[in-house]
Amino acid sequence: MKKIMNKPENFANETLEGILRAHPNDLRAVGDDVRELVRADAPVQGKVAIATGGGSGHLPVFLGYVGKGMLDGVAVGDVFNSPSAQQMFNVTKAIHGGKGVLYLYGNYGGDVMNFDMAAEMAEMEDIRVETVLVADDVASAPKGEEHRRRGVAGLFFAYKIAGAKADEGADLDEVVAVTKRALANIRSMGVALSPCIIPRVGKPTFTIGEDEMEIGMGIHGEPGITRGKLKTADEIAETLLEAILNDGPYESGDEVAVLVNGLGATPQEELYIVYRRAHEILQEKGLKVFHVYVGEFATSMEMAGMSLTVFKLDEELKRLLKAPAYTPFFAQPQL
Amino acid sequence: MKKIMNKPENFANETLEGILRAHPNDLRAVGDDVRELVRADAPVQGKVAIATGGGSGHLPVFLGYVGKGMLDGVAVGDVFNSPSAQQMFNVTKAIHGGKGVLYLYGNYGGDVMNFDMAAEMAEMEDIRVETVLVADDVASAPKGEEHRRRGVAGLFFAYKIAGAKADEGADLDEVVAVTKRALANIRSMGVALSPCIIPRVGKPTFTIGEDEMEIGMGIHGEPGITRGKLKTADEIAETLLEAILNDGPYESGDEVAVLVNGLGATPQEELYIVYRRAHEILQEKGLKVFHVYVGEFATSMEMAGMSLTVFKLDEELKRLLKAPAYTPFFAQPQL
Repeated sequence: MKKIMNKPENFANETLEGILRAHPNDLRAVGDDVRELVRADAPVQGKVAIATGGGSGHLPVFLGYVGKGMLDGVAVGDVFNSPSAQQMFNVTKAIHGGKGVLYLYGNYGGDVMNFDMAAEMAEMEDIRVETVLVADDVASAPKGEEHRRRGVAGLFFAYKIAGAKADEGADLDEVVAVTKRALANIRSMGVALSPCIIPRVGKPTFTIGEDEMEIGMGIHGEPGITRGKLKTADEIAETLLEAILNDGPYESGDEVAVLVNGLGATPQEELYIVYRRAHEILQEKGLKVFHVYVGEFATSMEMAGMSLTVFKLDEELKRLLKAPAYTPFFAQPQL
Repeated sequence: MKKIMNKPENFANETLEGILRAHPNDLRAVGDDVRELVRADAPVQGKVAIATGGGSGHLPVFLGYVGKGMLDGVAVGDVFNSPSAQQMFNVTKAIHGGKGVLYLYGNYGGDVMNFDMAAEMAEMEDIRVETVLVADDVASAPKGEEHRRRGVAGLFFAYKIAGAKADEGADLDEVVAVTKRALANIRSMGVALSPCIIPRVGKPTFTIGEDEMEIGMGIHGEPGITRGKLKTADEIAETLLEAILNDGPYESGDEVAVLVNGLGATPQEELYIVYRRAHEILQEKGLKVFHVYVGEFATSMEMAGMSLTVFKLDEELKRLLKAPAYTPFFAQPQL
């Protein structure tokens, strides 16, 4: 187990302690629990607050998107584990600025159960909560069963859009509506080339041959669609985009944003080689690329692999995507 | 060789083609050569221009720092190889805005030879060129032989400071002076846990045991100071900081910026676990942390490992560090 760490059981908490020490002007813990993090200036009065949460091991997901123009707070679990309902509720109270709270997170069973419990606790204290689930991974369930799909790198776009809308002064219903409209336009799919190791477990999450890749594997090592020989970058771009474009609402003439996401160990060079071909395909399909993000936006620690996300835009979604944002993990000026 | 690519011999060029397709508003090639890249708005008239260059395989080094508030142009070589003097000269001409050009790059033999030749070519066309070498890696040569040290992640701080000074309207001598003053205050050291594979070569740059790490290894796999058992994150922070603080001009009461850099495959979680202890040590030494950068700033493709860089600040260096910057790989608002 070749990890830079101290005791495996302290992996998540020591990560969070490091983050709080590195970014004291941007983030703070709620009380003494480093797993309940909020913007340093929370609560922002008069703004819809946005909370997310989920397991550790996916940086910058989830906490990396807490900051200006994005999210207000996050509950953090152990590696690949859900945080508790109580932690989510504590975050909810700490970020509520009088205009309600949006729970915006990935569609995983443990997280859904705990966020739903937290929402009930919040309602008893007269904090209005609405929930929007991110379920962008087309590989995780077929068309018609979208409610079973997992949330992966599309989380980034959902956070960006919701955060920008909330920053404009929109009310909770408006933030919910635009986030749902964005998510209807977002699809992702990825490939995994190597496993990662959960520190407490100490062995790889799965095994895969030196010449193999798995298409559609989840960011916790959930089984994908097919396992086969490692393909070329061009073939990977073609396979992923075909699945994405067949599933989503993309039509010739549409404008799209694209996210090429590294899962952890895959170099940016390789991500750009994939984008090179993806760009050609999008052009062939008549899709106009409005903006491209390339890098590590949703990871599985040291897993090798990558995902593509395509986000169909309209005028409002473009405006919200272009808005500035600043967190310790993601910065964007007004585009 | 588990890489996402097409033909190994096209690795560097296809990366660059992908980058140009992804970021057409920010970067453009000089003529038809994708290995000569400049800001889309180059030349910026009336501003000192800054060029860098070096081999591929280190993203975001080098080209990732071409953009607003940082660099103007870059010549890109094949993986771990220097670009040619002609490419550097072509970039020089394309970025010269009438106030001279600073060559700012890492201290590697091939790059030095080619940049020096390019400078001679530029002088024949009456373009004034000054050179500043980055040589921040304390592991690569002992004190007293600083001129033999390699440039590693400290490049980032050098680019940030030089770029901000040029943006303020300073002349070439002033940009040179502040960049040299910054570099006198910058030290780095790293550890490697795994090799990377040069695509054309197809096998690892070195071998290392499953329970081993090498302290002070270079970003091309150059030998380090010692190889030994993998240490804990706390021990790594202690070892690296001891070497850095003993070598540099750091004194109790100083303000410093810190860069925790991932070499490629090491997750951000682990970088923050290292920073957690580094922060404690800096506080014990009486050093005040002004700003912390954590992430992948100078890599070796899929190499696992990390480096620490400490940058002692003064009032001017703080002002320049805080200035906004925007490239496709690095964005910072006014801090």
